[in-house]
Amino acid sequence: MGSGVTQHVSLEVLVQALRRLPGVGVRSAQRMAYHLLQHDRPGALQLARALEQAASSVRHCALCHTFTEDEICPTCLDPRRDRGLLCVVESPADQAAMERTGAYKGLYFVLMGKLSPLDGIGPNEIGLQQLLDRVDAQPEAHMPAVREVILATNFTAEGESTAHVITQALKGRHVQVTRLARGVPIGSELEYVDLGTIAHALVDRR
Amino acid sequence: MGSGVTQHVSLEVLVQALRRLPGVGVRSAQRMAYHLLQHDRPGALQLARALEQAASSVRHCALCHTFTEDEICPTCLDPRRDRGLLCVVESPADQAAMERTGAYKGLYFVLMGKLSPLDGIGPNEIGLQQLLDRVDAQPEAHMPAVREVILATNFTAEGESTAHVITQALKGRHVQVTRLARGVPIGSELEYVDLGTIAHALVDRR
Repeated sequence: MGSGVTQHVSLEVLVQALRRLPGVGVRSAQRMAYHLLQHDRPGALQLARALEQAASSVRHCALCHTFTEDEICPTCLDPRRDRGLLCVVESPADQAAMERTGAYKGLYFVLMGKLSPLDGIGPNEIGLQQLLDRVDAQPEAHMPAVREVILATNFTAEGESTAHVITQALKGRHVQVTRLARGVPIGSELEYVDLGTIAHALVDRR
Repeated sequence: MGSGVTQHVSLEVLVQALRRLPGVGVRSAQRMAYHLLQHDRPGALQLARALEQAASSVRHCALCHTFTEDEICPTCLDPRRDRGLLCVVESPADQAAMERTGAYKGLYFVLMGKLSPLDGIGPNEIGLQQLLDRVDAQPEAHMPAVREVILATNFTAEGESTAHVITQALKGRHVQVTRLARGVPIGSELEYVDLGTIAHALVDRR
């Protein structure tokens, strides 16, 4: 940029800060900064307050690791849920997708990531030990033993390898380990479904 | 979302606030919020401070309307620039693109928008009267009369109509009105055009 343009320090600092958001390059960051300053300063201040509030108050549920503002999240506290079922998902977004189906009434364990050795994300970072501790925990009146772990990590290379590692770690424990079924998505036409998916659906046919 | 997930108030507020950024839908906003809370809380706080700082300190240059933290921006104050040349651009990003060519040494007038009647953006919103006042201003020692207005609005329908309206408004005034040459590909925005093309268009201005 020319000398005149780089001297607007606050604007440059804002553009750099916006670039720390995932998927935001320098052009997007500039467009966001210009938009907020030109058309939506209340929005800028609202975002600033929301960031501060969330950064200070959002923490991880002691039981399932999802984001919450309490010691234990409302889902884990819900007495109507089946506490013998534990669904393992990669992220709160995946957990929300499971919830939207209305088909699951057990509890969750949210890895908050997936195994990715190249990015330095190993078993510690996804809380594998906490998951094992949860499965091994002595049953209590309000928290019976886990009888089934449902692996609902994504069907990507990293999600599959994460599911594999968890399966290995759970071997020898008195718990059933299942994986979401692979198959043809509802509403899709075979012609447009990738071959690997069709092959799996064929193998897993009921 | 299920009952458990919507009860994380700070997280929901943050997702909604992020959605006010241009080009950010609900999925992107969620991904941004999860990323900041899981991997980059210092980045979240840094962004919060940058937003507050910019929203309170960034204003518009009294002469050219671009973003600045001073009464008059450094570009307008630069004594080495030709004050008889006034280049009209839509945005600070376009101004930055012009500056990067190194081919222009005059001053700017930044419309901070473009005519778009359907969006309620008329001549007042792009500061047409201030532009006319600037052209009509009595020459002073430090600010000679404007002898040429170079229209460098984008070569889009709205940019062309903005250029047309400014041309009409400047008719009858003792000032030459030129337009960037059509070396710039039709339908594209200056911000994304390669520097050589912009430089040629400047030399070939009509």
